[in-house]
Amino acid sequence: MSFTPPVNAMHYLLKHAVDIDRIIDCDQHAELSHDLIGDILEGAAVFSRDVLAPLNGSGDQNPAQIKDGNVKSSPGFSKAYQDWVEGGWQTLSIEPEAGGMGLPQAVNSAAAEMFYAANMAFGLCPMLTSSAVKAISAHASEELKNIYLEKMVSGEWSGAMNLTEPQAGSDLGPVRTKAVPNADGSYAVSGQKIFITWGDHDCADNIIHLVLARLPDAPSGSKGISLFLCPKYLVNDDGSLGNRNGFRPISLEHKLGIHGSPTCVMEFEGATGWLVGEENRGLACMFTMMNEARLFVGVQGVGIGERAFQQALQFSQDRVQGRVIDQEAGAPIIGHPDVRRMLVDMKTRLMGARAICMATAAAGDLGACHGDEDVRQAAHAREALLTPIAKAYGSDIGVEVTSIGVQIHGGMGFIEETGAAQHYRDSRIAPIYEGTNGIQAMDLIGRKLRRDGGDAMRNLIQDLEGVALTCKSQSGVVFDQLEASLSSGIESLKTATDIVLNADEKHALSVATPYLRIAGDVLSGALLIKSAYSGQKAGDPYASSMLGLASFHAAHILPNANALLDAIRQGSTPIFGYEVGRLADL
Amino acid sequence: MSFTPPVNAMHYLLKHAVDIDRIIDCDQHAELSHDLIGDILEGAAVFSRDVLAPLNGSGDQNPAQIKDGNVKSSPGFSKAYQDWVEGGWQTLSIEPEAGGMGLPQAVNSAAAEMFYAANMAFGLCPMLTSSAVKAISAHASEELKNIYLEKMVSGEWSGAMNLTEPQAGSDLGPVRTKAVPNADGSYAVSGQKIFITWGDHDCADNIIHLVLARLPDAPSGSKGISLFLCPKYLVNDDGSLGNRNGFRPISLEHKLGIHGSPTCVMEFEGATGWLVGEENRGLACMFTMMNEARLFVGVQGVGIGERAFQQALQFSQDRVQGRVIDQEAGAPIIGHPDVRRMLVDMKTRLMGARAICMATAAAGDLGACHGDEDVRQAAHAREALLTPIAKAYGSDIGVEVTSIGVQIHGGMGFIEETGAAQHYRDSRIAPIYEGTNGIQAMDLIGRKLRRDGGDAMRNLIQDLEGVALTCKSQSGVVFDQLEASLSSGIESLKTATDIVLNADEKHALSVATPYLRIAGDVLSGALLIKSAYSGQKAGDPYASSMLGLASFHAAHILPNANALLDAIRQGSTPIFGYEVGRLADL
Repeated sequence: MSFTPPVNAMHYLLKHAVDIDRIIDCDQHAELSHDLIGDILEGAAVFSRDVLAPLNGSGDQNPAQIKDGNVKSSPGFSKAYQDWVEGGWQTLSIEPEAGGMGLPQAVNSAAAEMFYAANMAFGLCPMLTSSAVKAISAHASEELKNIYLEKMVSGEWSGAMNLTEPQAGSDLGPVRTKAVPNADGSYAVSGQKIFITWGDHDCADNIIHLVLARLPDAPSGSKGISLFLCPKYLVNDDGSLGNRNGFRPISLEHKLGIHGSPTCVMEFEGATGWLVGEENRGLACMFTMMNEARLFVGVQGVGIGERAFQQALQFSQDRVQGRVIDQEAGAPIIGHPDVRRMLVDMKTRLMGARAICMATAAAGDLGACHGDEDVRQAAHAREALLTPIAKAYGSDIGVEVTSIGVQIHGGMGFIEETGAAQHYRDSRIAPIYEGTNGIQAMDLIGRKLRRDGGDAMRNLIQDLEGVALTCKSQSGVVFDQLEASLSSGIESLKTATDIVLNADEKHALSVATPYLRIAGDVLSGALLIKSAYSGQKAGDPYASSMLGLASFHAAHILPNANALLDAIRQGSTPIFGYEVGRLADL
Repeated sequence: MSFTPPVNAMHYLLKHAVDIDRIIDCDQHAELSHDLIGDILEGAAVFSRDVLAPLNGSGDQNPAQIKDGNVKSSPGFSKAYQDWVEGGWQTLSIEPEAGGMGLPQAVNSAAAEMFYAANMAFGLCPMLTSSAVKAISAHASEELKNIYLEKMVSGEWSGAMNLTEPQAGSDLGPVRTKAVPNADGSYAVSGQKIFITWGDHDCADNIIHLVLARLPDAPSGSKGISLFLCPKYLVNDDGSLGNRNGFRPISLEHKLGIHGSPTCVMEFEGATGWLVGEENRGLACMFTMMNEARLFVGVQGVGIGERAFQQALQFSQDRVQGRVIDQEAGAPIIGHPDVRRMLVDMKTRLMGARAICMATAAAGDLGACHGDEDVRQAAHAREALLTPIAKAYGSDIGVEVTSIGVQIHGGMGFIEETGAAQHYRDSRIAPIYEGTNGIQAMDLIGRKLRRDGGDAMRNLIQDLEGVALTCKSQSGVVFDQLEASLSSGIESLKTATDIVLNADEKHALSVATPYLRIAGDVLSGALLIKSAYSGQKAGDPYASSMLGLASFHAAHILPNANALLDAIRQGSTPIFGYEVGRLADL
């Protein structure tokens, strides 16, 4: 199944949902222009479509394999990776200080969506390299930077993150891997890590592992964890590759999806590593890249969802089944109102989640580049607030949309050869990793909402009210309906926010997920409505389509915010209302 | 992962949700008693737990295989099938006229839920045999009945339904398989059928296929289709098995789930078949068993969901991760409010969908056995109304719940060995087969709602209002809240019903799925509330647990009905609001 990157949608949202001009105008992006953005997105689209997308199904059917401590990647992946490096795509998402292109994240996330849509399993390797570069660039010594950064920025060497252990997943406090100082200033790292994405493979010449481990006599728990750099092959003084380091993949996980991404169990047996950042500050170093990684997981949900949408759209235009209302015999199933409802639903959800991801990225960009300190501060707070929403909402929408994609295919959707099922399987990891969506919700109500007394959320709500006001200033039934639906949603979000701010901790934690969902539903609706209005005003040829999606959102999605309020009000009562032991009884 | 059949829940719902006594009291069930029901459910529970459940994971990992035109079933399935036959389990669901036990469907569906939960892939084989028995019993000649029924009722011979062809799925009108009369009164059947569940296997001695095919010169479309019986092995006059008939499986589908169920492409090459029912009335014969089959697919969703719930519950009680609020270090994750919310959510949705399935079955029972013609008529109408809801709501809940089950497992949920992912994959077929859930929604608003001017739905709403009134008569905050939530939901269902009754066809078809969902949400909520009240009144020890689920439903699920109203009001406008060609543009 071919893939057509949704470049039009990205340009549209960059212009009308997030106001990319404010970012282009920053001094830091002096060399950036609309034309350059256009060229980059077009290049990413071609690479995604022609190189990555054709390998998606075969990677699923031919997972990476392990033999004698080496992982052999899926057929074609190694060649595609060479093309990736030669095309300079790895540098896209890396900041200039580390030697990258330093593009705004709003643009990067658009390009990344195409890569993930084309081949999520492949796209995880560059994503992890970017994360590792970010950590090394921010925290490693100049010596380590000089040895590793350049080849990682180009992608010649890839990166891998070694965090999880069987007893340490969402909570990294119980990490047990040990790091013992060697005489030469390096450390001997020993322990077992699980769920290591692209932990070994044959695509890059070297793999640079960042490993969380515990120094001897380190404090217990999360305050005794340090970060170490362990290259697969030790690097000689002249930069050439030396001996293999003392760790290896000992098995690959058999996963529900993303089969083309090797998920390794890694065994470290006195591997040579170097400390990155300060002792016992390893988790703080990891937080450096967490915002970006979480945003990009939200983007993955949107990307896979887009791929599923395109496949379902194509199928529904080809498949003839049953007599379609108002049409001659032989009309394809897209004419059936319920099929069409599902397609518009998919597209609306995707566009809304995409707009949230882009708004999150743009807030990060503004926080980094704007000349005014107050603007930067506010943008930082906005980025922090939106990140858990982008991650959880984007990844949840991905699962919802890929499930609808299977449904539209009918019986064919359940047959693996069709390809719809792969998207359903692949998408399911995104709500889980980089912090489960439950953890995102806790982050939202804890660190992002209650810690600042609700300031960042109130600022966001003010912006949303601005969108509703704009609708009010328009004449016409459509905008009246949009305004009514949006205002009602905003009202629910405000009420929910007040409840969560004033609730005890147990109440707040009990309703964290419904609260995040309200925020996502209302924010996505507002962004679509804003985009529709802005595009219409600018005479954008796609404005009427965006208005169509906004209308569907207002009728089918925004009203959920009101429904979720009841749950928020009831708090922990319906959840802790009876003995937990009885859950198994009845 | 072990499986504990939810026998307590089933007894509770039989007593308090559907009033099984009304059915027991019918003359037809003179020999039935609570004790006998208890024995049957207990026996089914033991068989499910000890024989079927242990084969569920291995069936997934070791799918059925095809070799030289014969299907070899998954390891252990053939032995389990022998046990099934010897235990007399096949006779459970078959009416006495055909030689079965003639138990009420309310009891059958409870037993079936256990079988499906234990091993859905296995459970499909007996389900298809039951369907075939029903069709043969209702429509075949005495001669055919004499040859085939007895051995099918015992399960010695299994049944298979051959409907679908590549161009004929949801709409069977375009069926092309031909049946040409032979001189001896039999027919030569030729054509290709796809998606034939348990179309071939090595568990039973013979497989009796019912095949939709077209006689020469039959009218085109759905009015020219006849039903034929084609045994895998022809039966000699003395009842012994003769030659293999002229059809065979030519390949097996590679599916997302239910790997233990062989899904065959069947090639008929002049196979000998006998007409069942009248010429060109094949689809009408199929309708005989459609209600039952659809109900049982809803039950499958509940069954797999229950299995997923139990696994997630167990994991959450074992897994330690992160500090749990109000508890000492080392407390398992079930103490985290969001994890507990997910578990209660799963259980509530399952119990609600189970109650709907049971109410559907009980309506069918009453329609068949009650002494009063008016009661029978009303019960028939109720069964017809509820069947598409049971099918679609039960199967949708199955997918939702198994997805939450994966989520509770975190990273382990994505690893196939854990088993949570299998439920997620297995459950995905239920919203698709036996009429997609979109088709169920069309059936609900068309045949079941608009055709009788809304009478059956108004009767149902009246019953729901009775439940709300009962709440009102109770004192106490909990029942006040339940009443408020339920009454609001009922109001939404009434409004939605009026809208759909008065809408044009395009509007009605556009909102069929949201309408079905409203009906499911409100009905499931009402049944849980009714059960909680009735159990409390009777001093049932599980009443407080049911009240807990009802409270969760009232806070988290019932309010959705109101949210869906907006979509129902807007009708086709947001769905057909812009050119379909533009769906791919933006």
